[in-house]
Amino acid sequence: MLGNFSYCNPTKLYFGEDSLEYLRDELKNYGERILLVYGGGSIKKNGIYDDVMKILNESHKTVYELSGVMPNPTVEKLYEGVSIAREHQVDLILAVGGGSVCDYAKAVSVSAYCNEDPWDKYYLKMEDVDNEIIPVGCVLTMVGTGSEMNGGAVITNHETKLKIGHVFGENVFPKFSILNPVYTYTLPTYQMVAGFYDIMSHILEQYFSGSDDNTSDYIMEGLLKSLIHSSQIAVKNPQDYEARSNIMWTATWALNTLVAKGKTTDWMVHMIGQAVGAYTDATHGMTLSAVSMAYYRYIMPYALDKFKRFALNVWNVSPEGKSDETIALEGLKAMEDYMNHLGLVMNIHDLGVTDEMIEGIADATFSMNGGYKELSHDEIVGILKASM
Amino acid sequence: MLGNFSYCNPTKLYFGEDSLEYLRDELKNYGERILLVYGGGSIKKNGIYDDVMKILNESHKTVYELSGVMPNPTVEKLYEGVSIAREHQVDLILAVGGGSVCDYAKAVSVSAYCNEDPWDKYYLKMEDVDNEIIPVGCVLTMVGTGSEMNGGAVITNHETKLKIGHVFGENVFPKFSILNPVYTYTLPTYQMVAGFYDIMSHILEQYFSGSDDNTSDYIMEGLLKSLIHSSQIAVKNPQDYEARSNIMWTATWALNTLVAKGKTTDWMVHMIGQAVGAYTDATHGMTLSAVSMAYYRYIMPYALDKFKRFALNVWNVSPEGKSDETIALEGLKAMEDYMNHLGLVMNIHDLGVTDEMIEGIADATFSMNGGYKELSHDEIVGILKASM
Repeated sequence: MLGNFSYCNPTKLYFGEDSLEYLRDELKNYGERILLVYGGGSIKKNGIYDDVMKILNESHKTVYELSGVMPNPTVEKLYEGVSIAREHQVDLILAVGGGSVCDYAKAVSVSAYCNEDPWDKYYLKMEDVDNEIIPVGCVLTMVGTGSEMNGGAVITNHETKLKIGHVFGENVFPKFSILNPVYTYTLPTYQMVAGFYDIMSHILEQYFSGSDDNTSDYIMEGLLKSLIHSSQIAVKNPQDYEARSNIMWTATWALNTLVAKGKTTDWMVHMIGQAVGAYTDATHGMTLSAVSMAYYRYIMPYALDKFKRFALNVWNVSPEGKSDETIALEGLKAMEDYMNHLGLVMNIHDLGVTDEMIEGIADATFSMNGGYKELSHDEIVGILKASM
Repeated sequence: MLGNFSYCNPTKLYFGEDSLEYLRDELKNYGERILLVYGGGSIKKNGIYDDVMKILNESHKTVYELSGVMPNPTVEKLYEGVSIAREHQVDLILAVGGGSVCDYAKAVSVSAYCNEDPWDKYYLKMEDVDNEIIPVGCVLTMVGTGSEMNGGAVITNHETKLKIGHVFGENVFPKFSILNPVYTYTLPTYQMVAGFYDIMSHILEQYFSGSDDNTSDYIMEGLLKSLIHSSQIAVKNPQDYEARSNIMWTATWALNTLVAKGKTTDWMVHMIGQAVGAYTDATHGMTLSAVSMAYYRYIMPYALDKFKRFALNVWNVSPEGKSDETIALEGLKAMEDYMNHLGLVMNIHDLGVTDEMIEGIADATFSMNGGYKELSHDEIVGILKASM
């Protein structure tokens, strides 16, 4: 049943090849002091940095730069950002990068004027924001996380081995995001396909939960089919604008809160994958692909109807003369074939997991209860072993 | 190809059986003076009026009532609303009703402080809003138009026989909308199924345009499948909460701007149907159903691929051993069977159209150019005759 909910997503998106030009208009809405946040410097190589700086300068902004945001932004990096944002009393945080940079910008946004330790308040205690929030804008250069249109902000604390995502409310969502599919062309293939699977996993985590067939399930099947279609084109020709643009748009809607409305969600592939990531520092999307097939084959008997529906509606499995179980398994096989075709990592051994790590990874996996089967420690160990 | 676009939809939605309670929170954001807008008084019979008034009174608001908003709000009614809104300097317009009431509230919202004749400025000349806008909130009691989450506001001028819809920008969108599926239970079956087809038509008008298969096409196929599924349940049992809630949610996403982003759209069924409506005053959704099959069969040869896709993905037509044309026609036949099953009006004769009216209706039909075939006057006459 479609449960009760509220929905609001005020982020303004500018999409397309010319979308950076709209940054000029948006900058008029903010004061002079801009904190420019980015990652390891790839934007300096591909020219995006220069293009952004040109617009900032022509808009007569004072720019404070904060670079080196890592793929899994750390709490130490958060403190650094807080210090800079406060010191210069910035009027806007402009994130130029992928999901990590957008996440990081939001974390700094809520933390800059937090009177307590923001890690304690907003991550360990998951409290609501009650202090001033610095507005955030994003220029997206990688797709996958949906961070450009949601309130998610994951921060990692290496000392305590905790990676926590706080999903903040709509007042923390980016005020605007600029989505230019061309910016995603230069990503190496490994990162590109990992991002594709991250998108797929976001959809599946929300699809494989609950027994109903509500509107969201149908929308998700549409998003999955679009992704499957376009990703196979993109993997052959990464500069296919049509494929890359549709993937970018699909990624945004996969995790901008719409498809989760009124339904339960799972997120166990992310929980197991993130624990694998904590042990291996492997690319996020690959940790998800490496554990997915074992996970879904394990939980399939607990939601045979939904897996059958997945096979029929997403993978066009022909049902004639087959049992429900056969249909469902053929759907998962079609998914596995597709994943192999993309070149995804299909086992955790290839990510560097050793037999000795399995128990520790299982311990580090947080067991959620929104899926079809709440997993015990032993079951997680079983799935990890089946993923080796 | 996914074209360039911007997207922003800031409307906050409260969805579910308890959603009216959130009106209390929203009212805190506005001043004391509320213009309560509604239609013919059905909300007084079904208790929604009392529930809304109770919350308004408990929130210590001063309420100015404006009732009698008709299914096709007139320009005279608009002037009446403008006069009341200005006189009392209202802080919020609260629309309680279906799409017409929501549309009307938005028209008053932009017109109240317009220094010219708002019909001239915002309808005949379609100018941008440059005056103060009164915020609008909606409590939805009928589904179909999507007006609860978009900027559309259709006004009819009987004197000049013009029915014009201005789609205003996001600053005119309702600030909040309250969607309680239970409120839709009491609608008579004829109106209910007409609303269902209005939703389907909104999707098809956006689906049957352009040659690409972008993410929106896949999302629309999902919305269509959800609607087809739930409407067949609702027509048997109008009080099936699951079906009515999914239909309500589908209706919102069918016309809240998302699925039109980056693509062309058609709207010829609406153009022909509205001209039929101008001559017969028939229920909007029925004017659409009555002309749809003739229109789609006529344009099918100009977009065989899309009609084939429609048959396969939406109606599960089996393609084996069939020509593309046969597949496409079987899809349209499945759609026609579904429409008959719902009890929709399938010809314009039953809506009161006579042979003598045909030429006049064709003259009154505005020919759009976003579809697969720009229609001449004679082609529109042909479609109308085929719809008799």
